[in-house]
Amino acid sequence: MNESTEKNAVVLLSGGLDSATVLAIATDRGYRCHALSVDYGQRHRSELLAAQNVAGAMSADLKIVKLDLRTFGGSALTDDIDVPVEESEGIPVTYVPARNTIMLSLALAWAEVLGADDIFIGVNAVDYSGYPDCRPEFINAYEEMANLATKASVVGNRLTIHTPLIDLTKADIIREGTELGVDYSMTVSCYQADDEGRACGVCDSCRIRAAGFKAASVSDPTRYKSD
Amino acid sequence: MNESTEKNAVVLLSGGLDSATVLAIATDRGYRCHALSVDYGQRHRSELLAAQNVAGAMSADLKIVKLDLRTFGGSALTDDIDVPVEESEGIPVTYVPARNTIMLSLALAWAEVLGADDIFIGVNAVDYSGYPDCRPEFINAYEEMANLATKASVVGNRLTIHTPLIDLTKADIIREGTELGVDYSMTVSCYQADDEGRACGVCDSCRIRAAGFKAASVSDPTRYKSD
Repeated sequence: MNESTEKNAVVLLSGGLDSATVLAIATDRGYRCHALSVDYGQRHRSELLAAQNVAGAMSADLKIVKLDLRTFGGSALTDDIDVPVEESEGIPVTYVPARNTIMLSLALAWAEVLGADDIFIGVNAVDYSGYPDCRPEFINAYEEMANLATKASVVGNRLTIHTPLIDLTKADIIREGTELGVDYSMTVSCYQADDEGRACGVCDSCRIRAAGFKAASVSDPTRYKSD
Repeated sequence: MNESTEKNAVVLLSGGLDSATVLAIATDRGYRCHALSVDYGQRHRSELLAAQNVAGAMSADLKIVKLDLRTFGGSALTDDIDVPVEESEGIPVTYVPARNTIMLSLALAWAEVLGADDIFIGVNAVDYSGYPDCRPEFINAYEEMANLATKASVVGNRLTIHTPLIDLTKADIIREGTELGVDYSMTVSCYQADDEGRACGVCDSCRIRAAGFKAASVSDPTRYKSD
Protein backbone atom coordinates (compact mmCIF):
# COMPACT_ATOMS: atom_id res chain seq x y z
CA MET A 1 0.00 0.00 0.00
CA ASN A 2 1.20 3.47 -0.88
CA GLU A 3 2.40 5.35 2.23
CA SER A 4 0.47 8.49 1.28
CA THR A 5 -2.89 6.70 1.09
CA GLU A 6 -2.48 4.89 4.43
CA LYS A 7 -5.20 5.64 6.95
CA ASN A 8 -4.40 5.78 10.65
CA ALA A 9 -6.15 3.42 13.05
CA VAL A 10 -5.94 3.06 16.81
CA VAL A 11 -5.86 -0.59 17.89
CA LEU A 12 -6.46 -1.59 21.50
CA LEU A 13 -3.79 -4.14 22.35
CA SER A 14 -3.80 -6.09 25.60
CA GLY A 15 -1.05 -8.55 24.82
CA GLY A 16 -3.57 -11.39 24.63
CA LEU A 17 -4.40 -13.68 21.74
CA ASP A 18 -7.48 -11.78 20.55
CA SER A 19 -6.03 -8.29 20.33
CA ALA A 20 -2.84 -9.56 18.66
CA THR A 21 -5.08 -11.05 15.97
CA VAL A 22 -6.95 -7.75 15.65
CA LEU A 23 -3.68 -5.88 15.13
CA ALA A 24 -2.75 -8.34 12.37
CA ILE A 25 -6.17 -7.88 10.73
CA ALA A 26 -6.00 -4.06 10.85
CA THR A 27 -2.46 -4.14 9.43
CA ASP A 28 -3.58 -6.54 6.69
CA ARG A 29 -6.42 -4.15 5.79
CA GLY A 30 -3.81 -1.48 5.06
CA TYR A 31 -4.10 0.70 8.14
CA ARG A 32 -1.11 2.40 9.71
CA CYS A 33 -1.67 1.03 13.21
CA HIS A 34 -1.17 2.85 16.51
CA ALA A 35 -1.46 0.33 19.32
CA LEU A 36 -2.76 1.40 22.72
CA SER A 37 -2.29 -0.59 25.91
CA VAL A 38 -3.62 0.42 29.27
CA ASP A 39 -1.65 -0.29 32.41
CA TYR A 40 -4.67 -0.48 34.68
CA GLY A 41 -2.96 -2.19 37.57
CA GLN A 42 -3.69 -5.67 36.24
CA ARG A 43 -2.23 -8.47 38.29
CA HIS A 44 -0.82 -10.21 35.23
CA ARG A 45 1.94 -7.70 34.40
CA SER A 46 3.41 -9.88 31.70
CA GLU A 47 0.45 -8.80 29.50
CA LEU A 48 2.12 -5.42 28.97
CA LEU A 49 5.44 -6.98 28.02
CA ALA A 50 3.55 -9.19 25.58
CA ALA A 51 1.87 -6.09 24.09
CA GLN A 52 5.29 -4.55 23.50
CA ASN A 53 6.57 -7.68 21.77
CA VAL A 54 3.44 -8.06 19.62
CA ALA A 55 3.43 -4.39 18.55
CA GLY A 56 7.13 -4.59 17.73
CA ALA A 57 6.67 -7.74 15.63
CA MET A 58 3.96 -6.00 13.57
CA SER A 59 5.79 -2.65 13.29
CA ALA A 60 3.05 -0.72 15.08
CA ASP A 61 3.91 2.09 17.42
CA LEU A 62 2.68 1.52 20.97
CA LYS A 63 1.59 3.82 23.76
CA ILE A 64 1.01 2.47 27.25
CA VAL A 65 -1.30 4.68 29.30
CA LYS A 66 -1.19 4.31 33.06
CA LEU A 67 -4.59 4.36 34.75
CA ASP A 68 -4.89 2.73 38.12
CA LEU A 69 -8.35 1.13 38.21
CA ARG A 70 -7.49 -0.40 41.60
CA THR A 71 -8.58 3.00 42.91
CA PHE A 72 -12.15 1.78 42.46
CA GLY A 73 -11.71 -1.91 43.21
CA GLY A 74 -14.32 -4.50 42.30
CA SER A 75 -12.49 -7.07 40.12
CA ALA A 76 -10.43 -10.20 40.61
CA LEU A 77 -8.07 -8.90 37.89
CA THR A 78 -7.06 -5.87 39.92
CA ASP A 79 -7.97 -6.78 43.52
CA ASP A 80 -7.11 -9.54 45.95
CA ILE A 81 -10.14 -11.57 44.93
CA ASP A 82 -9.32 -15.17 43.93
CA VAL A 83 -9.45 -15.91 40.21
CA PRO A 84 -11.88 -18.82 39.78
CA VAL A 85 -10.71 -22.12 38.31
CA GLU A 86 -14.24 -23.43 37.72
CA GLU A 87 -16.51 -22.26 34.93
CA SER A 88 -19.01 -19.82 36.41
CA GLU A 89 -22.51 -18.62 35.50
CA GLY A 90 -23.34 -14.98 34.70
CA ILE A 91 -20.81 -12.14 34.98
CA PRO A 92 -17.49 -13.46 36.33
CA VAL A 93 -15.44 -11.82 39.09
CA THR A 94 -12.71 -11.24 36.51
CA TYR A 95 -14.92 -8.55 34.93
CA VAL A 96 -13.27 -5.12 35.32
CA PRO A 97 -15.90 -2.38 35.85
CA ALA A 98 -16.47 -0.32 32.70
CA ARG A 99 -13.18 -1.59 31.24
CA ASN A 100 -14.08 -1.51 27.55
CA THR A 101 -15.88 1.82 27.98
CA ILE A 102 -12.70 3.30 29.46
CA MET A 103 -10.36 1.66 26.93
CA LEU A 104 -12.45 2.88 24.00
CA SER A 105 -12.56 6.38 25.48
CA LEU A 106 -8.77 6.50 25.67
CA ALA A 107 -8.58 5.17 22.11
CA LEU A 108 -11.04 7.89 21.08
CA ALA A 109 -8.82 10.60 22.59
CA TRP A 110 -5.79 9.33 20.73
CA ALA A 111 -7.77 8.90 17.50
CA GLU A 112 -8.87 12.49 17.76
CA VAL A 113 -5.31 13.75 18.17
CA LEU A 114 -4.07 11.54 15.29
CA GLY A 115 -6.99 12.46 13.04
CA ALA A 116 -7.87 8.75 12.81
CA ASP A 117 -11.43 7.68 11.97
CA ASP A 118 -10.96 4.02 12.86
CA ILE A 119 -10.63 2.20 16.18
CA PHE A 120 -10.15 -1.58 16.43
CA ILE A 121 -11.04 -3.63 19.52
CA GLY A 122 -10.96 -7.40 20.00
CA VAL A 123 -14.28 -7.92 21.73
CA ASN A 124 -15.97 -11.20 21.12
CA ALA A 125 -19.61 -12.08 21.65
CA VAL A 126 -19.06 -15.86 21.44
CA ASP A 127 -16.60 -16.38 24.28
CA TYR A 128 -17.50 -13.17 26.05
CA SER A 129 -18.23 -15.02 29.32
CA GLY A 130 -21.09 -12.71 30.21
CA TYR A 131 -19.21 -9.40 30.03
CA PRO A 132 -21.84 -6.76 29.19
CA ASP A 133 -19.32 -4.55 27.41
CA CYS A 134 -18.49 -7.22 24.81
CA ARG A 135 -21.99 -7.28 23.29
CA PRO A 136 -22.66 -5.90 19.78
CA GLU A 137 -25.40 -3.58 21.12
CA PHE A 138 -22.84 -2.01 23.47
CA ILE A 139 -20.37 -1.42 20.63
CA ASN A 140 -23.08 0.10 18.42
CA ALA A 141 -24.17 2.46 21.21
CA TYR A 142 -20.54 3.39 21.87
CA GLU A 143 -20.01 4.25 18.21
CA GLU A 144 -23.12 6.46 18.19
CA MET A 145 -21.90 8.29 21.30
CA ALA A 146 -18.36 8.67 19.95
CA ASN A 147 -19.74 10.29 16.84
CA LEU A 148 -21.16 13.08 18.97
CA ALA A 149 -18.17 13.39 21.30
CA THR A 150 -15.36 14.77 19.20
CA LYS A 151 -14.18 17.64 17.06
CA ALA A 152 -14.10 15.26 14.09
CA SER A 153 -17.83 14.61 14.48
CA VAL A 154 -18.53 18.35 14.38
CA VAL A 155 -16.89 18.66 10.95
CA GLY A 156 -18.70 15.56 9.69
CA ASN A 157 -16.05 12.81 9.89
CA ARG A 158 -17.52 9.43 10.76
CA LEU A 159 -15.71 7.35 13.36
CA THR A 160 -15.99 3.57 13.11
CA ILE A 161 -15.40 1.04 15.88
CA HIS A 162 -14.20 -2.15 14.20
CA THR A 163 -14.79 -5.47 15.96
CA PRO A 164 -13.46 -8.04 13.50
CA LEU A 165 -13.63 -10.88 16.05
CA ILE A 166 -17.11 -10.26 17.35
CA ASP A 167 -18.77 -13.29 15.70
CA LEU A 168 -15.77 -15.63 15.63
CA THR A 169 -15.11 -18.63 17.82
CA LYS A 170 -11.71 -18.88 19.48
CA ALA A 171 -10.74 -21.48 16.87
CA ASP A 172 -11.77 -19.11 14.02
CA ILE A 173 -9.66 -16.35 15.58
CA ILE A 174 -6.62 -18.61 15.88
CA ARG A 175 -6.99 -19.83 12.30
CA GLU A 176 -7.27 -16.27 10.96
CA GLY A 177 -4.31 -15.03 13.01
CA THR A 178 -2.20 -18.02 12.00
CA GLU A 179 -2.88 -17.28 8.30
CA LEU A 180 -1.78 -13.68 8.91
CA GLY A 181 1.42 -14.83 10.58
CA VAL A 182 0.68 -13.94 14.20
CA ASP A 183 3.23 -15.49 16.57
CA TYR A 184 0.96 -16.57 19.41
CA SER A 185 3.90 -17.63 21.55
CA MET A 186 4.33 -13.90 22.25
CA THR A 187 0.79 -13.50 23.60
CA VAL A 188 -0.43 -13.99 27.15
CA SER A 189 -4.07 -14.80 27.90
CA CYS A 190 -3.78 -16.22 31.42
CA TYR A 191 -5.40 -14.24 34.25
CA GLN A 192 -2.55 -15.19 36.56
CA ALA A 193 0.48 -15.58 34.32
CA ASP A 194 3.88 -15.31 35.97
CA ASP A 195 6.43 -12.58 35.19
CA GLU A 196 7.81 -14.61 32.29
CA GLY A 197 4.31 -14.86 30.80
CA ARG A 198 3.87 -18.56 31.66
CA ALA A 199 0.23 -19.55 32.01
CA CYS A 200 -1.53 -21.33 34.89
CA GLY A 201 -3.48 -23.63 32.60
CA VAL A 202 -6.52 -23.78 34.89
CA CYS A 203 -8.28 -20.38 34.78
CA ASP A 204 -11.25 -19.66 32.45
CA SER A 205 -9.03 -17.81 30.00
CA CYS A 206 -6.43 -20.60 29.81
CA ARG A 207 -9.08 -23.25 29.25
CA ILE A 208 -10.81 -21.28 26.46
CA ARG A 209 -7.43 -20.64 24.78
CA ALA A 210 -6.25 -24.25 24.94
CA ALA A 211 -9.59 -25.51 23.60
CA GLY A 212 -9.32 -22.96 20.75
CA PHE A 213 -5.94 -24.25 19.57
CA LYS A 214 -7.22 -27.80 19.72
CA ALA A 215 -10.41 -26.97 17.77
CA ALA A 216 -8.39 -25.03 15.18
CA SER A 217 -5.94 -27.94 14.79
CA VAL A 218 -3.12 -25.48 15.34
CA SER A 219 -0.17 -26.43 17.52
CA ASP A 220 -0.46 -24.60 20.87
CA PRO A 221 2.69 -22.53 21.59
CA THR A 222 1.51 -21.47 25.09
CA ARG A 223 4.16 -21.78 27.79
CA TYR A 224 2.78 -23.19 31.04
CA LYS A 225 4.16 -22.84 34.56
CA SER A 226 4.06 -26.62 34.86
CA ASP A 227 6.24 -27.17 31.76
CA MET B 1 -32.65 12.60 54.97
CA ASN B 2 -32.54 9.23 56.65
CA GLU B 3 -29.12 7.55 56.26
CA SER B 4 -30.66 4.23 55.24
CA THR B 5 -32.60 5.72 52.34
CA GLU B 6 -29.66 7.70 50.94
CA LYS B 7 -28.74 6.88 47.37
CA ASN B 8 -25.14 7.00 46.25
CA ALA B 9 -24.12 9.32 43.44
CA VAL B 10 -20.78 9.87 41.72
CA VAL B 11 -20.13 13.58 41.08
CA LEU B 12 -17.37 14.70 38.72
CA LEU B 13 -15.54 17.49 40.48
CA SER B 14 -12.90 19.59 38.77
CA GLY B 15 -12.43 22.25 41.42
CA GLY B 16 -14.07 24.85 39.20
CA LEU B 17 -17.19 26.91 39.80
CA ASP B 18 -19.57 24.71 37.82
CA SER B 19 -18.75 21.34 39.35
CA ALA B 20 -18.75 22.80 42.89
CA THR B 21 -22.31 23.95 42.20
CA VAL B 22 -23.22 20.50 40.89
CA LEU B 23 -21.90 18.89 44.07
CA ALA B 24 -24.05 21.27 46.14
CA ILE B 25 -27.12 20.44 44.02
CA ALA B 26 -26.59 16.68 44.29
CA THR B 27 -26.09 16.97 48.05
CA ASP B 28 -29.23 19.11 48.32
CA ARG B 29 -31.20 16.45 46.43
CA GLY B 30 -30.30 14.00 49.18
CA TYR B 31 -27.59 11.94 47.51
CA ARG B 32 -24.62 10.59 49.39
CA CYS B 33 -21.97 12.08 47.12
CA HIS B 34 -18.72 10.48 45.99
CA ALA B 35 -16.64 13.10 44.24
CA LEU B 36 -14.24 12.10 41.47
CA SER B 37 -11.42 14.28 40.20
CA VAL B 38 -9.07 13.33 37.42
CA ASP B 39 -5.45 14.36 37.54
CA TYR B 40 -4.98 14.39 33.77
CA GLY B 41 -1.77 16.37 33.73
CA GLN B 42 -3.58 19.73 33.60
CA ARG B 43 -1.31 22.74 33.72
CA HIS B 44 -3.42 24.43 36.38
CA ARG B 45 -2.58 22.12 39.29
CA SER B 46 -4.39 24.29 41.82
CA GLU B 47 -7.67 22.85 40.41
CA LEU B 48 -7.01 19.61 42.26
CA LEU B 49 -6.33 21.39 45.54
CA ALA B 50 -9.58 23.31 45.00
CA ALA B 51 -11.42 20.01 44.44
CA GLN B 52 -10.12 18.73 47.78
CA ASN B 53 -11.27 21.86 49.58
CA VAL B 54 -14.70 21.87 47.94
CA ALA B 55 -15.31 18.17 48.63
CA GLY B 56 -14.23 18.65 52.24
CA ALA B 57 -16.55 21.62 52.71
CA MET B 58 -19.51 19.57 51.47
CA SER B 59 -18.55 16.37 53.37
CA ALA B 60 -18.18 14.32 50.20
CA ASP B 61 -15.50 11.70 49.91
CA LEU B 62 -13.08 12.34 47.07
CA LYS B 63 -11.00 10.10 44.84
CA ILE B 64 -8.37 11.57 42.55
CA VAL B 65 -7.55 9.29 39.63
CA LYS B 66 -4.26 9.85 37.83
CA LEU B 67 -4.47 9.60 34.06
CA ASP B 68 -1.84 11.36 32.03
CA LEU B 69 -3.60 12.66 28.91
CA ARG B 70 -0.37 14.42 27.90
CA THR B 71 0.52 11.00 26.47
CA PHE B 72 -1.73 11.91 23.54
CA GLY B 73 -1.18 15.67 23.36
CA GLY B 74 -3.48 17.98 21.43
CA SER B 75 -4.68 20.58 23.97
CA ALA B 76 -3.51 23.90 25.36
CA LEU B 77 -4.60 22.67 28.81
CA THR B 78 -2.08 19.84 28.83
CA ASP B 79 0.51 20.84 26.22
CA ASP B 80 2.82 23.78 25.65
CA ILE B 81 0.26 25.50 23.44
CA ASP B 82 -0.52 29.11 24.45
CA VAL B 83 -3.87 29.64 26.16
CA PRO B 84 -5.70 32.31 24.11
CA VAL B 85 -6.67 35.62 25.69
CA GLU B 86 -9.04 36.60 22.87
CA GLU B 87 -12.47 35.08 22.34
CA SER B 88 -12.22 32.51 19.58
CA GLU B 89 -14.63 30.97 17.06
CA GLY B 90 -15.39 27.25 16.88
CA ILE B 91 -13.67 24.65 19.06
CA PRO B 92 -10.97 26.32 21.19
CA VAL B 93 -7.43 25.02 21.70
CA THR B 94 -8.30 24.52 25.37
CA TYR B 95 -10.51 21.58 24.37
CA VAL B 96 -9.07 18.32 25.77
CA PRO B 97 -9.67 15.40 23.36
CA ALA B 98 -12.50 13.14 24.54
CA ARG B 99 -12.25 14.61 28.05
CA ASN B 100 -15.88 14.28 29.10
CA THR B 101 -16.11 10.84 27.51
CA ILE B 102 -13.14 9.71 29.57
CA MET B 103 -14.32 11.41 32.80
CA LEU B 104 -17.79 9.88 32.49
CA SER B 105 -16.24 6.45 31.84
CA LEU B 106 -14.21 6.67 35.04
CA ALA B 107 -17.33 7.82 36.91
CA LEU B 108 -19.19 4.86 35.42
CA ALA B 109 -16.56 2.43 36.71
CA TRP B 110 -16.79 3.86 40.21
CA ALA B 111 -20.60 3.97 40.08
CA GLU B 112 -20.61 0.30 39.18
CA VAL B 113 -18.39 -0.63 42.12
CA LEU B 114 -20.48 1.53 44.51
CA GLY B 115 -23.78 0.27 43.14
CA ALA B 116 -24.72 3.87 42.32
CA ASP B 117 -27.30 4.57 39.60
CA ASP B 118 -26.59 8.30 39.39
CA ILE B 119 -23.71 10.32 37.93
CA PHE B 120 -23.58 14.12 38.03
CA ILE B 121 -21.53 16.24 35.63
CA GLY B 122 -21.39 20.02 35.29
CA VAL B 123 -21.56 20.34 31.53
CA ASN B 124 -23.21 23.44 30.20
CA ALA B 125 -24.60 24.04 26.74
CA VAL B 126 -24.84 27.83 27.14
CA ASP B 127 -21.21 28.72 27.83
CA TYR B 128 -19.81 25.54 26.32
CA SER B 129 -17.54 27.46 23.94
CA GLY B 130 -18.01 24.96 21.15
CA TYR B 131 -16.94 21.81 23.04
CA PRO B 132 -18.74 18.91 21.31
CA ASP B 133 -18.84 16.84 24.51
CA CYS B 134 -20.92 19.44 26.36
CA ARG B 135 -23.96 19.13 24.10
CA PRO B 136 -27.21 17.53 25.33
CA GLU B 137 -27.19 15.07 22.41
CA PHE B 138 -23.77 13.83 23.51
CA ILE B 139 -24.98 13.32 27.09
CA ASN B 140 -28.09 11.45 25.92
CA ALA B 141 -26.00 9.15 23.71
CA TYR B 142 -23.56 8.57 26.57
CA GLU B 143 -26.40 7.57 28.89
CA GLU B 144 -27.75 5.11 26.31
CA MET B 145 -24.31 3.56 25.92
CA ALA B 146 -23.71 3.40 29.67
CA ASN B 147 -26.95 1.53 30.11
CA LEU B 148 -25.56 -1.27 27.96
CA ALA B 149 -22.04 -1.21 29.40
CA THR B 150 -22.36 -2.45 32.95
CA LYS B 151 -23.39 -5.31 35.17
CA ALA B 152 -26.14 -3.08 36.60
CA SER B 153 -27.69 -2.72 33.15
CA VAL B 154 -27.79 -6.52 32.79
CA VAL B 155 -29.93 -6.85 35.93
CA GLY B 156 -32.19 -3.98 34.82
CA ASN B 157 -30.92 -1.02 36.87
CA ARG B 158 -31.19 2.27 35.01
CA LEU B 159 -28.22 4.62 35.19
CA THR B 160 -28.89 8.34 34.88
CA ILE B 161 -26.41 11.04 33.89
CA HIS B 162 -27.55 14.23 35.62
CA THR B 163 -26.60 17.57 34.06
CA PRO B 164 -28.30 20.12 36.31
CA LEU B 165 -26.43 23.05 34.75
CA ILE B 166 -26.96 22.22 31.12
CA ASP B 167 -29.46 25.01 30.37
CA LEU B 168 -28.23 27.57 32.89
CA THR B 169 -26.28 30.73 32.21
CA LYS B 170 -23.18 31.35 34.33
CA ALA B 171 -25.21 33.90 36.34
CA ASP B 172 -27.96 31.31 36.99
CA ILE B 173 -25.34 28.81 38.16
CA ILE B 174 -23.78 31.33 40.54
CA ARG B 175 -27.17 32.35 41.94
CA GLU B 176 -28.17 28.72 42.54
CA GLY B 177 -24.84 27.84 44.16
CA THR B 178 -24.93 30.92 46.34
CA GLU B 179 -28.39 29.95 47.62
CA LEU B 180 -27.02 26.48 48.44
CA GLY B 181 -24.10 27.99 50.33
CA VAL B 182 -21.24 27.23 47.93
CA ASP B 183 -18.07 29.10 48.91
CA TYR B 184 -16.83 30.13 45.47
CA SER B 185 -13.62 31.54 46.90
CA MET B 186 -12.48 27.89 47.10
CA THR B 187 -13.01 27.27 43.39
CA VAL B 188 -10.57 27.82 40.55
CA SER B 189 -11.78 28.38 36.98
CA CYS B 190 -8.71 29.99 35.41
CA TYR B 191 -6.89 28.01 32.71
CA GLN B 192 -3.55 29.33 33.98
CA ALA B 193 -4.05 29.85 37.70
CA ASP B 194 -0.92 29.95 39.84
CA ASP B 195 -0.10 27.42 42.56
CA GLU B 196 -2.13 29.40 45.11
CA GLY B 197 -5.16 29.30 42.81
CA ARG B 198 -4.96 32.97 41.81
CA ALA B 199 -6.51 33.67 38.43
CA CYS B 200 -5.03 35.42 35.39
CA GLY B 201 -8.19 37.45 34.73
CA VAL B 202 -7.68 37.45 30.96
CA CYS B 203 -8.37 33.91 29.64
CA ASP B 204 -11.78 32.83 28.27
CA SER B 205 -12.67 31.04 31.49
CA CYS B 206 -11.78 34.04 33.70
CA ARG B 207 -13.81 36.44 31.57
CA ILE B 208 -16.90 34.19 31.53
CA ARG B 209 -16.64 33.72 35.32
CA ALA B 210 -16.23 37.43 36.09
CA ALA B 211 -19.14 38.33 33.81
CA GLY B 212 -21.26 35.70 35.58
CA PHE B 213 -20.73 37.18 39.04
CA LYS B 214 -21.52 40.62 37.66
CA ALA B 215 -24.72 39.44 35.92
CA ALA B 216 -25.81 37.54 39.05
CA SER B 217 -25.19 40.62 41.21
CA VAL B 218 -23.10 38.44 43.52
CA SER B 219 -19.86 39.75 44.95
CA ASP B 220 -16.94 38.07 43.12
CA PRO B 221 -14.59 36.31 45.58
CA THR B 222 -12.05 35.34 42.89
CA ARG B 223 -8.43 36.01 43.81
CA TYR B 224 -6.41 37.45 40.93
CA LYS B 225 -2.64 37.38 40.41
CA SER B 226 -2.77 41.16 40.00
CA ASP B 227 -4.45 41.74 43.40
